[in-house]
Amino acid sequence: MGYALLDAATDPATILDCGLVPVAAASSASERLVSIADALGALIAQHRPAALALERLYFNKNARTAIRVAEARGVALLCPARAGLVVAEYTPQEVKLSVTGTGSADKKQVQRMLGLVLALAAPITQDNVADAVAIALAHAQRERFGAAVALASG
Amino acid sequence: MGYALLDAATDPATILDCGLVPVAAASSASERLVSIADALGALIAQHRPAALALERLYFNKNARTAIRVAEARGVALLCPARAGLVVAEYTPQEVKLSVTGTGSADKKQVQRMLGLVLALAAPITQDNVADAVAIALAHAQRERFGAAVALASG
Repeated sequence: MGYALLDAATDPATILDCGLVPVAAASSASERLVSIADALGALIAQHRPAALALERLYFNKNARTAIRVAEARGVALLCPARAGLVVAEYTPQEVKLSVTGTGSADKKQVQRMLGLVLALAAPITQDNVADAVAIALAHAQRERFGAAVALASG
Repeated sequence: MGYALLDAATDPATILDCGLVPVAAASSASERLVSIADALGALIAQHRPAALALERLYFNKNARTAIRVAEARGVALLCPARAGLVVAEYTPQEVKLSVTGTGSADKKQVQRMLGLVLALAAPITQDNVADAVAIALAHAQRERFGAAVALASG
């Protein structure tokens, strides 16, 4: 499970932290969820983000994987809600559209656009981490757009 | 989501508490998970059970339902693991086999057998609650069998 913490107050937004939540592959389902909850809890406590955005899950080809991913999502939805964060979900298409301008972009296109939009010195090539950065950026862009619309109509 | 708390030290086992976790249907996914976590946390704090048994999830015909159920399962696996409980998972077939003697029993047969095995004054007719009682009983029976085997071989 990838994660990314974005400071959207700067222009361009700044990646404060990103990476993979460490999960021992051999551990049981409940141990795995505890390690995800602990890692998310530590990140939330350290960075005190205002919101958490998550990819909306669609059905996977692999039933067993889809269930385990959905269980982890349950934990990823619970932890921020308990900490009082705004929780938002975006479909992969919404994230791609927001970051690249097209909902049908592939992973490499998303990663190239992240490098450009965030003015990164080096591109993020780990898929799960790049996905997390893209989801965070999509949320930041929607919030910014929402604020602009509120300003224009206010 | 049904739940049941069973005291397996008596013969037959005693239902200490059972029912449905109250979840507002209109609430968001994360609010729903918080209410499940809060309810499970309160039940665990009140009854201090030694173990929590859960039905192993198989793929559902309805994709959206399966994902939401799996998310709730994630929370239901996390809470007891954090509280130090043993967490066990059983397939519906294992539960039916344990309670009725056949893995292909229907819900009504399971409910009738629960009434007999637990010497209930009135049968449990709410499906989710009866499922929870059956899963708890299946776990208690497996633990008892495990203890008997350990005794016989010890």
